[in-house]
Amino acid sequence: MAADNREPVTVIGLGAMGSALARAFLAKGHPTTVWNRSPNKADDLVSQGALRATTVADAMSAGRLIVVCVLDYRAMREIINSTDDTAADRVIVNLTSGTPADARATAAWAGERGMSYLDGAIMAIPPMIGSEEALIFYGGPQEVYETHAETLRSVAGGGTYLGPDAGLPSLYDVALLGLMWTTWTGFMQATALLASEEVPAEDFLPYAQTWFEHVISPEIPTLAGQVDTGAYPDNESTLGMQAVAIAHLVHASRTQGVDAALPEFLHARAEQAIRRGHADDGFGAVFEVLRNPTAQ
Amino acid sequence: MAADNREPVTVIGLGAMGSALARAFLAKGHPTTVWNRSPNKADDLVSQGALRATTVADAMSAGRLIVVCVLDYRAMREIINSTDDTAADRVIVNLTSGTPADARATAAWAGERGMSYLDGAIMAIPPMIGSEEALIFYGGPQEVYETHAETLRSVAGGGTYLGPDAGLPSLYDVALLGLMWTTWTGFMQATALLASEEVPAEDFLPYAQTWFEHVISPEIPTLAGQVDTGAYPDNESTLGMQAVAIAHLVHASRTQGVDAALPEFLHARAEQAIRRGHADDGFGAVFEVLRNPTAQ
Repeated sequence: MAADNREPVTVIGLGAMGSALARAFLAKGHPTTVWNRSPNKADDLVSQGALRATTVADAMSAGRLIVVCVLDYRAMREIINSTDDTAADRVIVNLTSGTPADARATAAWAGERGMSYLDGAIMAIPPMIGSEEALIFYGGPQEVYETHAETLRSVAGGGTYLGPDAGLPSLYDVALLGLMWTTWTGFMQATALLASEEVPAEDFLPYAQTWFEHVISPEIPTLAGQVDTGAYPDNESTLGMQAVAIAHLVHASRTQGVDAALPEFLHARAEQAIRRGHADDGFGAVFEVLRNPTAQ
Repeated sequence: MAADNREPVTVIGLGAMGSALARAFLAKGHPTTVWNRSPNKADDLVSQGALRATTVADAMSAGRLIVVCVLDYRAMREIINSTDDTAADRVIVNLTSGTPADARATAAWAGERGMSYLDGAIMAIPPMIGSEEALIFYGGPQEVYETHAETLRSVAGGGTYLGPDAGLPSLYDVALLGLMWTTWTGFMQATALLASEEVPAEDFLPYAQTWFEHVISPEIPTLAGQVDTGAYPDNESTLGMQAVAIAHLVHASRTQGVDAALPEFLHARAEQAIRRGHADDGFGAVFEVLRNPTAQ
């Protein structure tokens, strides 16, 4: 498709991520209209060929596809609500971060106003936007996604449609981010233990990487299967045995004067799973507690 | 070296791991004497060529190198203490699990009895023992390690000497295990969120694996460098911004009815680091709190 036949796009919200989205649309030849509450944030984009909308109403009427990336869902709804019914028949692609409940409430809100709504969660930092590696999860009506999928691929090659539920992208988003923060914190917790004996993290790093590759990562698919089936066979190391070893970690953390809260959390969850009858299962049985913390 | 010139070894403690160690020594041709409090645990090994010691004193006098793998450090000291001075001049290789403080106390105890002492931490499950991939960390006098390194390689190709401090193997051990439990728990926490919306872990798995490969793992060496230098530059995403996103994770976890303790821990540590002045640093600044939880 020639660049001048590309679908027009409006981008509302020109923070670091919104600006990266607008730049990527421009780079792929989409006529791109931009709006931001502080108008000077649009200056660079306008100098690169973007059209400046001076009002939200102008932004909403520049084309059918409206990509929104602002601080939170409330800000998003306030901005769209500031216009009159020009918003009807538009397709809102909301890439604002939030929770599944936010996304579903906003999908219902958009429906009441006659707008089509796709919720999206961006699994990338701004410099990755426009690349094949950037991943965005989408949820909402399938025909709406498919109509605009090619345009949306201009900002993220890895666009992934999760289904009609607008809440799933946010759920995948917080799930993946939580995995990231947890793993990074686990690594720093380990380096804190070693730092207490003046061992540099760089000395520990190659062992940690080998351990990830040969021990931690290979077990992840096994855990996924266990979680889905609710059966947690031990692999030569029962949860009962591992709880004893986790107690060593708790004790070592306290003795070394580093934060013991994360080890204590791991130990508490292992003990809870044991109290629910999982002593002879594997570590995966901890899932039963995480999934349903109040069951007995 | 012909098999009949291999160094004799004694293995004390024939649980799953001790038995695997004895089998590996036997398989590599070491004359192997075994002892266990319940003698019948030695039967299989004796049928494979091991020599059965009927008393601890016999086990201790069968050769110079004594490998011990029992329940805990106290059990280890009680067993050795049950003999008289035949233990002097022996080399104890203690592969029992414990804390750095346990290991150092036991090194001092061994020294008082005229024994050489190496502490070891096995980073493998029993079926891996005897392979090139099995890793054991050692700490203790370098000349003692080097004298017996070839023999010790019979049970783990990846024998690694960490230095004279007998406490370091246990520290590396609990650090790596903590990283493992934390990462697995982070993955199960993510699958718990998705399970709350009936999304199978198998659907989430490929995204989690891609996310590990392209986002989580590449940052680990960066975090190691930050931890060592005490400088935590943000990479387009400040801790202040990430704390807002972690709050979304906390809120989503509560709303979905899954265990929110781990997200709350992550949020609390991010907020503590922010209160210590790290709002504009990257996520790595959380290390400052983990390392020194009581500082202000």
